Amino acid sequence: MSSSYGNKLKVQVFGQSHSPAIGVVIDGFPSGMKVDMEFLSAFMARRAPGQALSTPRKEADEVEFLSGLNASGETCGAPICAIIRNTNTRSKDYSALAITPRPSHSDYTSLIKYGDSRDIRGGGQFSGRLTAPLCIAGALCLQFLAEKGVKIGAHISSVLNIHDDRYDLVNDEIPNNVRGFSCINAEKAEQIKSVIESARMNLDSVGGCVEAKIVGLGAGLGDPMFDGVENRLAQIMFAIPAVKGFEVGAGFEVASKYGSENNDPLCVIDGKVKTVTNNAGGINGGITNSMPIVFRVAFKPTPSIAKPQQSVNLKEMKEEFLEITGRHDPCIVVRAVPVVEACSAIAVLDMML
Amino acid sequence: MSSSYGNKLKVQVFGQSHSPAIGVVIDGFPSGMKVDMEFLSAFMARRAPGQALSTPRKEADEVEFLSGLNASGETCGAPICAIIRNTNTRSKDYSALAITPRPSHSDYTSLIKYGDSRDIRGGGQFSGRLTAPLCIAGALCLQFLAEKGVKIGAHISSVLNIHDDRYDLVNDEIPNNVRGFSCINAEKAEQIKSVIESARMNLDSVGGCVEAKIVGLGAGLGDPMFDGVENRLAQIMFAIPAVKGFEVGAGFEVASKYGSENNDPLCVIDGKVKTVTNNAGGINGGITNSMPIVFRVAFKPTPSIAKPQQSVNLKEMKEEFLEITGRHDPCIVVRAVPVVEACSAIAVLDMML
Amino acid sequence: MSSSYGNKLKVQVFGQSHSPAIGVVIDGFPSGMKVDMEFLSAFMARRAPGQALSTPRKEADEVEFLSGLNASGETCGAPICAIIRNTNTRSKDYSALAITPRPSHSDYTSLIKYGDSRDIRGGGQFSGRLTAPLCIAGALCLQFLAEKGVKIGAHISSVLNIHDDRYDLVNDEIPNNVRGFSCINAEKAEQIKSVIESARMNLDSVGGCVEAKIVGLGAGLGDPMFDGVENRLAQIMFAIPAVKGFEVGAGFEVASKYGSENNDPLCVIDGKVKTVTNNAGGINGGITNSMPIVFRVAFKPTPSIAKPQQSVNLKEMKEEFLEITGRHDPCIVVRAVPVVEACSAIAVLDMML
Amino acid sequence: MSSSYGNKLKVQVFGQSHSPAIGVVIDGFPSGMKVDMEFLSAFMARRAPGQALSTPRKEADEVEFLSGLNASGETCGAPICAIIRNTNTRSKDYSALAITPRPSHSDYTSLIKYGDSRDIRGGGQFSGRLTAPLCIAGALCLQFLAEKGVKIGAHISSVLNIHDDRYDLVNDEIPNNVRGFSCINAEKAEQIKSVIESARMNLDSVGGCVEAKIVGLGAGLGDPMFDGVENRLAQIMFAIPAVKGFEVGAGFEVASKYGSENNDPLCVIDGKVKTVTNNAGGINGGITNSMPIVFRVAFKPTPSIAKPQQSVNLKEMKEEFLEITGRHDPCIVVRAVPVVEACSAIAVLDMML
Repeated sequence: MSSSYGNKLKVQVFGQSHSPAIGVVIDGFPSGMKVDMEFLSAFMARRAPGQALSTPRKEADEVEFLSGLNASGETCGAPICAIIRNTNTRSKDYSALAITPRPSHSDYTSLIKYGDSRDIRGGGQFSGRLTAPLCIAGALCLQFLAEKGVKIGAHISSVLNIHDDRYDLVNDEIPNNVRGFSCINAEKAEQIKSVIESARMNLDSVGGCVEAKIVGLGAGLGDPMFDGVENRLAQIMFAIPAVKGFEVGAGFEVASKYGSENNDPLCVIDGKVKTVTNNAGGINGGITNSMPIVFRVAFKPTPSIAKPQQSVNLKEMKEEFLEITGRHDPCIVVRAVPVVEACSAIAVLDMML
Repeated sequence: MSSSYGNKLKVQVFGQSHSPAIGVVIDGFPSGMKVDMEFLSAFMARRAPGQALSTPRKEADEVEFLSGLNASGETCGAPICAIIRNTNTRSKDYSALAITPRPSHSDYTSLIKYGDSRDIRGGGQFSGRLTAPLCIAGALCLQFLAEKGVKIGAHISSVLNIHDDRYDLVNDEIPNNVRGFSCINAEKAEQIKSVIESARMNLDSVGGCVEAKIVGLGAGLGDPMFDGVENRLAQIMFAIPAVKGFEVGAGFEVASKYGSENNDPLCVIDGKVKTVTNNAGGINGGITNSMPIVFRVAFKPTPSIAKPQQSVNLKEMKEEFLEITGRHDPCIVVRAVPVVEACSAIAVLDMML
Repeated sequence: MSSSYGNKLKVQVFGQSHSPAIGVVIDGFPSGMKVDMEFLSAFMARRAPGQALSTPRKEADEVEFLSGLNASGETCGAPICAIIRNTNTRSKDYSALAITPRPSHSDYTSLIKYGDSRDIRGGGQFSGRLTAPLCIAGALCLQFLAEKGVKIGAHISSVLNIHDDRYDLVNDEIPNNVRGFSCINAEKAEQIKSVIESARMNLDSVGGCVEAKIVGLGAGLGDPMFDGVENRLAQIMFAIPAVKGFEVGAGFEVASKYGSENNDPLCVIDGKVKTVTNNAGGINGGITNSMPIVFRVAFKPTPSIAKPQQSVNLKEMKEEFLEITGRHDPCIVVRAVPVVEACSAIAVLDMML
Repeated sequence: MSSSYGNKLKVQVFGQSHSPAIGVVIDGFPSGMKVDMEFLSAFMARRAPGQALSTPRKEADEVEFLSGLNASGETCGAPICAIIRNTNTRSKDYSALAITPRPSHSDYTSLIKYGDSRDIRGGGQFSGRLTAPLCIAGALCLQFLAEKGVKIGAHISSVLNIHDDRYDLVNDEIPNNVRGFSCINAEKAEQIKSVIESARMNLDSVGGCVEAKIVGLGAGLGDPMFDGVENRLAQIMFAIPAVKGFEVGAGFEVASKYGSENNDPLCVIDGKVKTVTNNAGGINGGITNSMPIVFRVAFKPTPSIAKPQQSVNLKEMKEEFLEITGRHDPCIVVRAVPVVEACSAIAVLDMML
């Protein structure tokens, strides 16, 4: 396996940065959903480059459905295939990169794994561009889940040392992001933009966190041990390039807490069993307890920076300095927000079916 | 699925806290390994209760092999089944717990998922006791990996606000733990013991972190996207009860770093490609780069505390206070260390085969 | 994989002919079913040796549940593990067989696959004895399915050139087998017994077919292409040792038919869509159409025969004659009938969940 | 699951008869193979319609690679996606078929499974046209296997009551098919053509068998019980529409044989262990023994015949006669031969990796 995910909902991603197209096949998606093309386009636009603070590359990211819909545009039970053509690929020479891998990239590991035949152009199958097909699949899942009353949202919770407001762990609300930018707090949004902008000016990049919240799931979703909701979310989140950490509910903070602080007392609200606090992030024993699921994902700074960096010339096996040119995001976190939503939706729908 | 893990190495755990036995089936384990029963026993003893600072329950945890070995005690290619009898189970009445679930436990979610027939005795299949079969499987994998030059170690990296020394990210050494306790630094070990002891005195519990290091893997292990080494480790770590966070290499710290700080420059050492730093934790694009894999796992404080807690009587649907009696670990982290090693070994061997 | 089957219902078989025990883990079985131990015993007895016309070995085949049941003997949602101890194993020397493999056995192929460490005693993991755990899992599934109105039956449809009556393809009845022998027609049963008995007298064995029928499934079960009902049944039937053919409905006869003969006209019976004939065996496009599922499985004659046979001494790489001693079934088909029912039930329940 | 196959080589088929395209994603294919586009085209042409004795529909079946190849046309380790555009689709009205299902088709079962949203046009995802993507995947696997010395061939072994010569079970030769038609014996080929032609004249169709042979595998491929070579081949063969039976080696004939006839004596040829006969079809205990693998697959006559047939009007729930118009194969077996080869290659490569 590798680019294939899921048990009941199979999501198979394909494509390289410079292959004719990238895309996804979704097998097992329920029949009868009229695909909301406007929602899909709007969702794809949130991930697309060419926005403020992201790479100036312009990717049309126009989604073409090759299969899975009937004549009325409804899902028909057949595997859904949707693709995006790779149009705006600069046909530059990548042979230098093949010899001198970029630090903290997959350039070296992909060589070891696939040999000289690997597709090095634009990062090949390791390109962040491959998150676009994840977003197609995710958008369909989000639409389906929304029709079932399940809502998923995410925001930039931190960049460098600037922290956005946190999601409330207990209530069922998912506050809107600041218009055009994935933060809750408008002031923090501006500070984050500045941090990113100054990183760009310094030919550098910055890391950050994305926080997500899922409401409306009810209790009883997930399986014990290896297939708990946490296991499934963790597994899929690390499919997003640059992710180096994942935590649920109170997350790493639980390590410095007493049981009496961390335990979530049970209570009855409107005749339903709830918890007073939600350090568990909505999950006990791998299974949802009807409280909101809240989790955070840590993204490293984009490794592609214009500053000169030490690498190794693999032909001559000697160290040398590398200068990466090209168009790169100074902070991948901005565009990662919808990807986190998309992956959440895929994992959740796979468990629900 | 649920208690079944792996692609090429299938690990199927079974048992409940009070069922006749708990155990594991390991399908796909290579034939020809003479099982080192002494190593296995010693490894199991590290997880077993009855140690200083853990529950006074005495579990023999004697491993019986039902299948998978030939007459000489070598793995023969057939699925290996090994069990531990549940002997020391107090046959007390669990009907009260069935009505008033313990906060931050699976008592409520298991009811929603499985109904009244679920096995509530001692936590049923959600009991921490189910980590013993994981340790059996892990011990076999550890032995096999050791014979291939792969070494795995773990230690308590923090409890409450006391932090043990960190593993070096760059070198290939795994320092021994302080005798009889899973810390590197003897002084910190004593401080951690005090913190745990005082939590116990207060009828409370404490959380903590486990850090693990894997060396000797070489480059090229793991697959892109959904089946990267990080995905696989994250998925299996959340199978250990009480885990709420997982991070690799620099982990969540990457979120507050610049690319120029976080990138790991490549270098040549002894004719091999290495990195100067190892914020990546040995993994680029999901694939090992031959540097040590280092990761940390956050454990919440044991939810079973003797202090009275607010719960809900599900029969009458009203809030009431609950006092849990019985024998419980004040800090599960101590016994979780070998479980983290075991799960690492299972995940790594599954990817290697 | 290998001894692990299923998507939603995971069945993991383990054990060798002479290991301490053989058994099965069933993960994903619905909670809340009170296991009918009498039905289970009676079902196991149908497969057990020591019957008329089978090997005189006496296997107690007593089933012990290690996990998966609650205190009341109901399935509790946890993986079910059940074992049978291997008691009556003759500790004879198998080293000769390791050098001179039995023709048409797995003795040679298991050596190539697993090397010298494979367990050769009594056929190891390839022993027909491993169908006992399949029967445990199957009996539980059969009970569950019966409670949902799904009935499964099988009979010896032929041995050598003697053919029992066929199941009716159209009606929903499954005629009882002749008491104590798995045939429908009492006269044919006697003829089959004679054929088997005379094979035994000649130190030989005979092959035969088992036919199975599944009713009560309704329409809509199964998935297109790789996961149709036929695919799933075929895959699991070949898990039974000695199976060399599988056919559904009219089976191989369709190859010599015209479309106008073979097509099953649709009709309305009691307000429901049915077909007039059932050459399809209840399946169109991999999906059930509510007609009975009928299929046949071909079993080769037991390869273990007392007659001297040509083999190869692997040490000296020269041909030599082999005489197999020991207790062997002259016709495995007799005891295979419940195994076919068991495997059918496992496959069907996995698809239904 | 459903249209997804394989463990190490994942094959995901997608598309409907009238969707914009049909295609396949192949994940896990080894990197470094230069795709032989001429071989691929020639292979696709063998399955394509528009040949003598098949439907007059002209399908271009031109394969477009969307991903998985590097700039030099070599497999690069990334998932391979290849599609065929659906161009020659008649946009006729399918609403009648939606009400009155064709006998022995999936029209009724797909309605039950997917509801009114299923894609009924041209058979939707159940169309025989979906075997084209299987052929793409198969052609790549065949090329790879050929480079490793594994050869796979198939031929029409029977149509109605005309039988082509059988493959020799023992030697390693795969005789060529008669030019332009998949038979070994030229005379039989002519007879088969006549039978098909006369069925067409009678507005009818005929069934038949395909026999396949795989040589060069060596011993040791396959796993015990559920993942034997037979299980895997059987599972994938039933993915081809119209298949109703599968048998290996001597197949159903074993049921009427004595053990002393059916057992394959071992012998030494050129210093290698072989068998004198090969009733086992090259497989013992699910594992290859280095003898040729030979198996047969039974195909029912195409259900689409022009003769009027009894069906049910589902709206009014009454029986009525149906006349199917359109272009249909009088004998699907002719075009199924390369599909059997393709599926064999997919299954074999998945087991080999």
